[in-house]
Amino acid sequence: MESSKVHSKNNVEILCIGTELLLGNIINSNSQWLAEELAGLGLNHYKQTVVGDNLTRLKKSIIESADRCKILITTGGLGPTPDDITTEALAQVFNTPLKEDKKLLEEIQFKLNRKGHLTTSNNRKQAQIPIGAKVIPNPNGTAPGIIWSPIPGFTVLTFPGVPSEMKRMWKDTAAPWLRKNGGSKNIFHSKILRFAGVRESALAEQIKDLLYQKNPTIAPYAYLGEVKLRLTACAASIKEAHELLHPLERDLKTRTGLLCYGSNEDTLASVVINLLHQRNEFLAIAESCTGGGLSAAITAIPNASKVFKGGLITYSNEMKNTYLGVPNDLMQKHGSVSKEVVIAMAQGAKQKLQTDWSIAVSGIAGPGGGSTTKPVGLVHFAIAGPSGCSSFHENFSPYRSRVDIQKLSVMHALNLLRLQMICRS
Amino acid sequence: MESSKVHSKNNVEILCIGTELLLGNIINSNSQWLAEELAGLGLNHYKQTVVGDNLTRLKKSIIESADRCKILITTGGLGPTPDDITTEALAQVFNTPLKEDKKLLEEIQFKLNRKGHLTTSNNRKQAQIPIGAKVIPNPNGTAPGIIWSPIPGFTVLTFPGVPSEMKRMWKDTAAPWLRKNGGSKNIFHSKILRFAGVRESALAEQIKDLLYQKNPTIAPYAYLGEVKLRLTACAASIKEAHELLHPLERDLKTRTGLLCYGSNEDTLASVVINLLHQRNEFLAIAESCTGGGLSAAITAIPNASKVFKGGLITYSNEMKNTYLGVPNDLMQKHGSVSKEVVIAMAQGAKQKLQTDWSIAVSGIAGPGGGSTTKPVGLVHFAIAGPSGCSSFHENFSPYRSRVDIQKLSVMHALNLLRLQMICRS
Repeated sequence: MESSKVHSKNNVEILCIGTELLLGNIINSNSQWLAEELAGLGLNHYKQTVVGDNLTRLKKSIIESADRCKILITTGGLGPTPDDITTEALAQVFNTPLKEDKKLLEEIQFKLNRKGHLTTSNNRKQAQIPIGAKVIPNPNGTAPGIIWSPIPGFTVLTFPGVPSEMKRMWKDTAAPWLRKNGGSKNIFHSKILRFAGVRESALAEQIKDLLYQKNPTIAPYAYLGEVKLRLTACAASIKEAHELLHPLERDLKTRTGLLCYGSNEDTLASVVINLLHQRNEFLAIAESCTGGGLSAAITAIPNASKVFKGGLITYSNEMKNTYLGVPNDLMQKHGSVSKEVVIAMAQGAKQKLQTDWSIAVSGIAGPGGGSTTKPVGLVHFAIAGPSGCSSFHENFSPYRSRVDIQKLSVMHALNLLRLQMICRS
Repeated sequence: MESSKVHSKNNVEILCIGTELLLGNIINSNSQWLAEELAGLGLNHYKQTVVGDNLTRLKKSIIESADRCKILITTGGLGPTPDDITTEALAQVFNTPLKEDKKLLEEIQFKLNRKGHLTTSNNRKQAQIPIGAKVIPNPNGTAPGIIWSPIPGFTVLTFPGVPSEMKRMWKDTAAPWLRKNGGSKNIFHSKILRFAGVRESALAEQIKDLLYQKNPTIAPYAYLGEVKLRLTACAASIKEAHELLHPLERDLKTRTGLLCYGSNEDTLASVVINLLHQRNEFLAIAESCTGGGLSAAITAIPNASKVFKGGLITYSNEMKNTYLGVPNDLMQKHGSVSKEVVIAMAQGAKQKLQTDWSIAVSGIAGPGGGSTTKPVGLVHFAIAGPSGCSSFHENFSPYRSRVDIQKLSVMHALNLLRLQMICRS
């Protein structure tokens, strides 16, 4: 392969491989995640490509990318089945033989044996890498990736298509490598600020005079139930980057107050768990329409067991009565989706589980079960704490899916608890 | 522009234009939606590309696509702002002047006036289309698209990036045009079969003689805790496609037996809920390490409330004792992550909530809390049913994240319940 542009290239491309992407079976979330990571590393990224599991077209794509970019990131096609052809295609394009990596094979065998599986000839294929390539270990799966510079001025990094595996490999191996070898003279350092209880457009309006500044930059991202701002400083050192970021962060926090719930890897659940840890207080949960999702968000955080006593998913009135002591006549009079019942649920959970705090949620997640007075999307919340019990309600759009209404309710409940813990005790 | 391959090209490409995609600000849902539509129309679609709002790189991408494909679908870059350059780039590539379309300008002015906006010179730009191009009307917005064949054997269809506008224009104008002019004589029809309790490589081994057949094709996909096979038939009619798919589906089901848990939109949770509905039986859940995730999977399914009485997230021994009646000395003797305790949890939940079935889960999700005899990843399961209680355990990799161990435990528990319901009653 020849390239006349070797020395002028200084950008990154993403190539996602998989016929399932061309058939629309799955959404390309890997591209978005990697794009955001590249932006955070300050690397120029001008093109993304998707091709199927077809050797001829994949090879053609690799040749084109190698001619255009300095670093190519690929996802997909590293599995054990015959349609996984990424490594083979790379080896063919750069006329390099594949060689079985003994250590890698042993690792794959170890991982499979531990789970009682035999190593098939298919798995053996995963231990073959081009001569000269280095392995990107995959702690979460059997498909390793490679870092390989087959020609001067061009490096390819391969990842499996499974997002959890790809992300772990990126964080452990690829991101540190790119920080060192990506070619950005300055370092880019980012800090993420996270916001709940505010829409992206309203937040943007509040800070619009800052959105066009050049260094640090601010990029807003909206997700279901939360917004984040990525603040990125370009500087000669981490220290200098911190000095650029610090006043901006302070300004943003002053302007937004309690809307900003945390930074970087924080989640609403981790922030709530930390508050409980700090105060040495305990939490109980009583949920109906969120059906376990609220407790699951809490227990996803390591060490939740030290502050979370337990949850009651009272999906029937019978259970609300027996386990939480909600009076039957209260449910008859107001219905189980009501301010009155959700307050009784929170008080019951706090008392029965003997905790300092409790959250209760009851609502109509749909698609059925709505009425004119209580439409799909109506959700009642109550927070019981050391100084009493407060109730809230929210009307999420009835056009949202059941699962989205459940997820939004979980975020909202956690944010309410956070605000109550900060303001009311 | 010249191309020597004009008459051999018979495929479609998607080109999405927008710097926000390269920064990872938004996910490329348009690509997935269009890909699925193209598959449904039976059009071969081999490549997707994303480029930013940069004239040079966009023009280069258009030239490359025109050389490779028969039909190019673009999204994005049709708005009124200076960074919207799709139409201009197309006109430049094919040396064609832009001309203001009077009718289009009137429509744009009418739409803006209706919303109380004035027509700016920016909006005027949206009425300019290359000579020879036809308009794709945009009923939901101001940005119209075009259908244009600037050279023999190549047609470009442009759409705005806003999904609701793009989809409406596609359905109203582009899909009918493609059905007539796309050149596909056949339709493609797919069926998905879903598997649990088996690895992708082991499943592929079991059906390896079928993986290379041409019509219907089989494509395997692996996800956390499950594998799916997409069977796709190419035929002159839906009926003919069904006739091709049916014997293959029967063959696969015979070979794989109970490993195949469902098809198309089924999930393990929906299959379990359906089994309960069919038998008019009720379920209770007692969970520890999955922390609500198992109940959340069940309650994500509409109408779960008709068969799911509730769940107890017993995160403390105290709660296991009080709410499930697990004897304290049993927990002391065996530890709360043990066969004995998980059986007592399942029996307690079934009895206290008066259900036909119950699932109990207790394990070590990590990252802390593991020991030599009970490592991170060890999870005990028990299923209590009408004819008794069975227990199981699984060692998930300790290198997996807490959340992955929780998710795998949820899938495993649901699959165990499914198998017990089918085999043991």
